[in-house]
Amino acid sequence: MPPENRRIAETTFRVRFAETDQMQIVHHAAYIVYLEEGRSELGRQFGASYSVLEDAGFSLAVTEIQAKYLASARYDQRIAVRTWIEELRSRSLIYGYEIINAENRQVLVTGTSKHVCIDRQGQVRRIPEAWRQTLENHMILSTTI
Amino acid sequence: MPPENRRIAETTFRVRFAETDQMQIVHHAAYIVYLEEGRSELGRQFGASYSVLEDAGFSLAVTEIQAKYLASARYDQRIAVRTWIEELRSRSLIYGYEIINAENRQVLVTGTSKHVCIDRQGQVRRIPEAWRQTLENHMILSTTI
Amino acid sequence: MPPENRRIAETTFRVRFAETDQMQIVHHAAYIVYLEEGRSELGRQFGASYSVLEDAGFSLAVTEIQAKYLASARYDQRIAVRTWIEELRSRSLIYGYEIINAENRQVLVTGTSKHVCIDRQGQVRRIPEAWRQTLENHMILSTTI
Amino acid sequence: MPPENRRIAETTFRVRFAETDQMQIVHHAAYIVYLEEGRSELGRQFGASYSVLEDAGFSLAVTEIQAKYLASARYDQRIAVRTWIEELRSRSLIYGYEIINAENRQVLVTGTSKHVCIDRQGQVRRIPEAWRQTLENHMILSTTI
Repeated sequence: MPPENRRIAETTFRVRFAETDQMQIVHHAAYIVYLEEGRSELGRQFGASYSVLEDAGFSLAVTEIQAKYLASARYDQRIAVRTWIEELRSRSLIYGYEIINAENRQVLVTGTSKHVCIDRQGQVRRIPEAWRQTLENHMILSTTI
Repeated sequence: MPPENRRIAETTFRVRFAETDQMQIVHHAAYIVYLEEGRSELGRQFGASYSVLEDAGFSLAVTEIQAKYLASARYDQRIAVRTWIEELRSRSLIYGYEIINAENRQVLVTGTSKHVCIDRQGQVRRIPEAWRQTLENHMILSTTI
Repeated sequence: MPPENRRIAETTFRVRFAETDQMQIVHHAAYIVYLEEGRSELGRQFGASYSVLEDAGFSLAVTEIQAKYLASARYDQRIAVRTWIEELRSRSLIYGYEIINAENRQVLVTGTSKHVCIDRQGQVRRIPEAWRQTLENHMILSTTI
Repeated sequence: MPPENRRIAETTFRVRFAETDQMQIVHHAAYIVYLEEGRSELGRQFGASYSVLEDAGFSLAVTEIQAKYLASARYDQRIAVRTWIEELRSRSLIYGYEIINAENRQVLVTGTSKHVCIDRQGQVRRIPEAWRQTLENHMILSTTI
């Protein structure tokens, strides 16, 4: 569950045949790729695709992944990945996720991923200020009165 | 780190080109597949491939995955997956893992996965006794005096 | 290039980060999965998802794949898969494909795939009549005068 | 079938669970990754891993893939990829492949891939002479009398 007032990016797509396994459900590693799609969508909605950060020589290296599998998705099913920033620090951040059945909103998978900002040499660096500002501004739903 | 006296299955292979990403390292989702390879190897060393369990109508559904990424692997590098049973219960079990650089034994990734035994209808079931016994017998390194 | 008057299904999506490799372009095997997505979309537009055929105990097993790689796709890029039925026989069919850059319509990959209809025992079978009729009706663009 | 007297590199491994699909066989795109593993093995046996070529700023970009699927592989099955150089030109080469059941030597998949030598800017270049010589020397089985 996302913290209150958190801005959530949602992206919807269909399960691909190649993502199923012989248990006739989506293979558990495929959801890890879905989480990444969620992060990509979040970046796009922030007006800054992740590729911009990469062009500047930085990247957000994954340092930890955690996923809980509650229910299965199947081929051709429409699913949605809901992504938010759970926590933002100077050199790292944690994303939170829910993967849901896009038709009935049933939660299939929940997860988090931790990321640390590194430069081209793989050294840990502060998240560039312009990016950090963008992230902070968009993390919380603005409540205009 | 595996608990003391725990029997560890180790399987070694090379990183495939397709498993790299544009950061020129192994993509983080690929390690989740490596963990599964570790489980497969553990089953083989127990004298019972996982496919035997599947033929009997049971499977060990993944309910949780957790991975910490400490260092990167690269294309063509030899890595080893070390797998053990961290905890065995009547209906579920937890595997522990280390993925290491096979040349210098540096730890690249650590992880755990939780699994619950289900039947063909997806209902949670006790782990079949023959399998449970096998798992228990092989979980601990026998200390013959 | 599709034969004249052929009905073409088009589906558009973005390249996923996990689909890139260390050459910083989409890995060539990922396009084979994209082709499959094209086939899935074609089936949906025919009003019959492939999962319906599978539920009836049939499947269209891939017997041949051919792909030509003309230009590269990159992370986050919008691409479209254009799919049509190149040839329809009693027990098999050939799909034709173009994968294009969705922004400028540049052709990135062309391909074909051959499929044979099999039953649950893996025996080659005639394509079920209802399906064959559907395929035939939708293969050609209707020219209403 | 490889041309006569052609040197063949063979690499053996087990099918991973993640490589199966809901038809309970190996997904057809997974074999494309297996072919690449075959190429990697060929390079290693030539005494020059592909990573060496990459470090020098060159790569062999895939321009065409063709695969015929004759029989299915299943989870945990041992398969072998047999790879040889089918044709060597100044700027390009064609690899030939057979993927076989490692137990009974049944042929599962045959294929070819065409590659063109490119530099870091993506321009087509002659295959570096040292590499070309190595390839030529090892292409044919030496028949010492």
